[in-house]
Amino acid sequence: MAGPDQSPEERLIAQHFRPLATHPGAFGLADDAAVLSVPEGFDLVVTTDGVIAGVHFFFDDAPADIARKALRMNLSDLAAKGAKPLGFVMAVALPESTDDAWLAAFAAGLGEDAGRYGCPLLGGDTDHTPGLMSISITAFGAVPQSRMVQRSGARVGDSVLVTGTIGDAALGLRLRGDRNLASRWRLTEAMAGHLLGRYLRPEPRTTLAEAVLSFASSAMDVSDGLAGDLGKLCRASSLAADVDVAQVPLSDAAHTAIASRPTLLETLLTGGDDYEIVLTVAQAKLQAFQAAARAARVPVTEIGRMRSGDGAQFTRQGKALVFARPAFSHF
Amino acid sequence: MAGPDQSPEERLIAQHFRPLATHPGAFGLADDAAVLSVPEGFDLVVTTDGVIAGVHFFFDDAPADIARKALRMNLSDLAAKGAKPLGFVMAVALPESTDDAWLAAFAAGLGEDAGRYGCPLLGGDTDHTPGLMSISITAFGAVPQSRMVQRSGARVGDSVLVTGTIGDAALGLRLRGDRNLASRWRLTEAMAGHLLGRYLRPEPRTTLAEAVLSFASSAMDVSDGLAGDLGKLCRASSLAADVDVAQVPLSDAAHTAIASRPTLLETLLTGGDDYEIVLTVAQAKLQAFQAAARAARVPVTEIGRMRSGDGAQFTRQGKALVFARPAFSHF
Repeated sequence: MAGPDQSPEERLIAQHFRPLATHPGAFGLADDAAVLSVPEGFDLVVTTDGVIAGVHFFFDDAPADIARKALRMNLSDLAAKGAKPLGFVMAVALPESTDDAWLAAFAAGLGEDAGRYGCPLLGGDTDHTPGLMSISITAFGAVPQSRMVQRSGARVGDSVLVTGTIGDAALGLRLRGDRNLASRWRLTEAMAGHLLGRYLRPEPRTTLAEAVLSFASSAMDVSDGLAGDLGKLCRASSLAADVDVAQVPLSDAAHTAIASRPTLLETLLTGGDDYEIVLTVAQAKLQAFQAAARAARVPVTEIGRMRSGDGAQFTRQGKALVFARPAFSHF
Repeated sequence: MAGPDQSPEERLIAQHFRPLATHPGAFGLADDAAVLSVPEGFDLVVTTDGVIAGVHFFFDDAPADIARKALRMNLSDLAAKGAKPLGFVMAVALPESTDDAWLAAFAAGLGEDAGRYGCPLLGGDTDHTPGLMSISITAFGAVPQSRMVQRSGARVGDSVLVTGTIGDAALGLRLRGDRNLASRWRLTEAMAGHLLGRYLRPEPRTTLAEAVLSFASSAMDVSDGLAGDLGKLCRASSLAADVDVAQVPLSDAAHTAIASRPTLLETLLTGGDDYEIVLTVAQAKLQAFQAAARAARVPVTEIGRMRSGDGAQFTRQGKALVFARPAFSHF
C-alpha cells in the first residue's frame, strides 16, 4: 500500500521488511498485530534474545551477518527445546545514521535465513534511537503438547552430550579483536577463517530438534559457555555432571591454538556464542539418539554423566578444573 | 534455584522478575524458552512494541510508570484486535548504573499490571548496555480462529468511532516538558494532572475487546495520533473516512487548552500516545456495539463515516483541515 501519506517508518518497513513477511498471518506488516495458528495438539514455544551494537556485535560487522546471528540465536534455542520454527517478530532500534544500503543488506541476510529455516517474519517494531543499534527477536516454535524439552529433566546416570565442537566462537571473538593472534596461535589461514566464521555465523542445530524431542531427558543451547550453561542445566535438574575435558569435542583450529597456548582451555569452555546443544540422554536411549543424530548429519559427542550432587564438574586427567570466571555473560 | 554459581543476570532475574512469572509455562524463568497453550479453536495474536529512554519516556519518569506504559502499549494493540491477553515476554537493555531500587520499583509496576490485566510474564532477555535503557515487549492474546479484527475490513457507509478522549496525552507530553504551559493554557491543577496522567499512565481498553471482536468491521489502536492512524486504517481498507472535528471527543482539560490556544487542535489530532481504539462499525450493528460498550463502561463516540476514496479527511464547519505534520512518529 505505498502512498504519499506513508510515514518514514511505514516506507522503511514496506521497502525492506515487507518482502520477508511471507506468512499470511503477518498481513504484509500492515496491521498492528500478527496471527499465528498453532497446530492442534501442539504447544507454542516462545524464546526471546537480542543483540546490541558494541556488546554482541562489532559496529563494522556485515549487516547480513548481524541479522543472521540475531535470528539464529533464537533458532538455536528452539532447536534445543525440540521445537520446529513457526516464525518470529523483531524489534529494531536504529541510529539515525543507518542508511538504505545497510538496511537492504540486513534485510537480505535476514530474509535468506527466514527462508532457509522456514521461519518467516510475522511483525515488528521499528524505532530510531539516539543510542546504540539493537535488534531484539522473539521466535516461535511448535512442540507436541506438554513435550517441550526442559533444562530440568536430567536423571542420575544419563549421558551428557554436546553437538558440534566447543569454543570455536570464543576464539573467533578474540581473533575478531586482534588478527595477530592467528600467528601467535600458529593457525593456518583456513583455521583462522573457520574460527571467525563460527563467531560471525553460528549454525543453529535445527535439524536435530526432532531427535532432541524424541530422546533427550533435558537440553539447552550452549550460548554462554559450556561450563556455565551445563551448570545451569545441573541446577535446574538438581543434579551434578562429571565431564572429562579430554572428551569435549574441539575443532582442528581449537586443538592447534590450545597446543601453543594451553591456558586457552578456559576460554574454550567458558566463552560464549557456541550455539551448540548440550543435552542429557538416558542410557537406554543413547544408541537410538546417536543414530538419529547421524541421520540428521549433526555430530554429537558424549562428554560425561549425570550424578547426584550439585554443579558441573570438569576434570582433566582426573584433576578437577577450577575456572576463574565460570560463565561468559553479555550482562 | 538461588546458588553461589548464579551469574549476575540470573540473580537479577531471580530477585526482580521471577515473582512475576506466575504462568506455569514460564518455568520460573529458569529455562531458555516458555510454553503457551493456545485454546483449541483460537488463534494466537502477537504484537510487539517497545520504549527507549529519551525517545518514548523521560530518564526521570517513575520506573513503575515506565514498566506499565511498556506493557500497556501492547495491551492496547491486543484490545484493538479483539484479543484476550495470554502473557508477554520482555527484552530489557539496562545501563550499568541501573540500581536495585530502580529495578524493584520497575518490577513492582510491571507485576501489578500483569496481575490487573491477566497477562503474566512468560520469559525474557536481560542485557547490560553502554547505551540507552530500552524495554521491548512482545505480548500474546487469543481470538477465535480467523477472527482477528484487522485494519482492512472497513466498508463504505460504516460509522467511525473512537473510545475515550483524544489528544490528552499529546498535551500531557508538552506539559511534562514545560510545566509553565499549564497556566498559559488556563488549566486548573486537576486538569494539568489529568493530562500528565494520560501521558504517563495510558489505560488500555481491554474491557472493550469482546465488543470490538463482535461488532467492528475494522479497528486499530490510536498510538501515533488519530489523523495518521485513521489514515492507515483507510489505506488498509482502500477507503476514505470523513470526520467532523466537532464530534471528536475531548476532555474538559483539552477543551480548556484549545479555547486559549486554538492552534493546539493539530497537536490533539496528530499527537501520539492516546492508546484509545478507532474502529468502524456497520450501521446495522451500531446500536448493539454502543450497548456493549456501555456494558463494558468504555465511552465511545461516533466521529464520522467511511466512503469510497482515499485517506482520512478531517473537516471543521465544513472546511477541510490540512495538517502540517499528519502523524506523530517516534521514528
